[in-house]
Amino acid sequence: MAKSEGEGMKVVVLVSGGMDSVVALHHAAAGGHEVLGGLSFDYGSKHNHREIPFAKYHCDQLGVAHQTIDLGFINTHFESALLQSGDAIPDGHYEESSMKQTVVPFRNGIMLAIAAGFAESREAEGLVIAAHAGDHAIYPDCREDFMKAMGEAIQLGTYANLTVLRPFIAQRKEEIAARGHELGVDFAQTWSCYKGGREHCGTCGTCVERREAFALAGLEDPTNYQKQA
Amino acid sequence: MAKSEGEGMKVVVLVSGGMDSVVALHHAAAGGHEVLGGLSFDYGSKHNHREIPFAKYHCDQLGVAHQTIDLGFINTHFESALLQSGDAIPDGHYEESSMKQTVVPFRNGIMLAIAAGFAESREAEGLVIAAHAGDHAIYPDCREDFMKAMGEAIQLGTYANLTVLRPFIAQRKEEIAARGHELGVDFAQTWSCYKGGREHCGTCGTCVERREAFALAGLEDPTNYQKQA
Repeated sequence: MAKSEGEGMKVVVLVSGGMDSVVALHHAAAGGHEVLGGLSFDYGSKHNHREIPFAKYHCDQLGVAHQTIDLGFINTHFESALLQSGDAIPDGHYEESSMKQTVVPFRNGIMLAIAAGFAESREAEGLVIAAHAGDHAIYPDCREDFMKAMGEAIQLGTYANLTVLRPFIAQRKEEIAARGHELGVDFAQTWSCYKGGREHCGTCGTCVERREAFALAGLEDPTNYQKQA
Repeated sequence: MAKSEGEGMKVVVLVSGGMDSVVALHHAAAGGHEVLGGLSFDYGSKHNHREIPFAKYHCDQLGVAHQTIDLGFINTHFESALLQSGDAIPDGHYEESSMKQTVVPFRNGIMLAIAAGFAESREAEGLVIAAHAGDHAIYPDCREDFMKAMGEAIQLGTYANLTVLRPFIAQRKEEIAARGHELGVDFAQTWSCYKGGREHCGTCGTCVERREAFALAGLEDPTNYQKQA
């Protein structure tokens, strides 16, 4: 029988190295879960090489084993501006339709499915994913109804009846930032920018959103942006 | 709006090179679907190198593009006797509990998720998987309730509302063999044995099942087994 979210569970955390998943990792460790591993996916995006080292940084800080799963086939076979093989990253706010170009088809489904197999091989009881209330309607595999169905598929398709935990599902990004601040997370050691340059560009959808989250949370933004707002 | 199973759809077929999926490929092509691609997964099992060339053989025969997706991380990070990194393949009938060792955690979930992203990148409308009524209760990710939930997750998580087609879900393996015979499938060009030797061993669970299917269908078995029954 699967445990409820409140109890201490053996979990694997999906941690990209962005703000939300890094807070989810610290939150899981602080909340009484036994974190068996932190899992990153290198799917050939323009920014994976910037964000994944930060995922490892925070796992190391917490003494959690970190693994990167190579999904090179996505860059080879899938279409998206987010990928090295794709077009340029559009600037602008997330809600604009141009951001649809950055969708990697069924990315969350693929990452959750692989994490489920990985977690079952380690006798975990749950997965943690930093899905949140501000996730964008333009991404079908971020929506609540998808997440519920995928969680059910994972529960039914594993011996351990693995539970998909979404601790931030009712929170907005600025609330996650506030929780991270409370936990002492060093946000300078996180990465958002889709362009994957030496510094955050400051103008792509995910940079705009990062800035907003710090501002709305009333926190100092430690990020060096190429272009100031 | 997703089309029903009966209509001509643009589909991607999951084809391992085993009997069932090869028949599913020919069945889809004969049944009025436009087969955009055949997809194999090399997850580091002991028999992938034997079966995948047969998947390509049948795609070539039908003029369908064939791709192999490399899932090397499964062999590295997952536990199963099916894998090169795992223990020896047990002999005996599928229903025996020893066959549990051959489970690759959440394998069908992972393959379906990746196929969904691949299919969406090709503007397909559906996936075809050769799940059938004889699939084994020891594999949770073969069960009907898993397949239904996963199909729902894929429909909800893709722009195209991709449909997971399971044309053989109400049939037993011998009925699939009979359908293949009707379609002129050359079963000598298919592979089942989990051990992945030069010839089918004749004694592992999947060899036992292969033999039974031909016998029950009243078809000649073209397979050279190392050990005759």
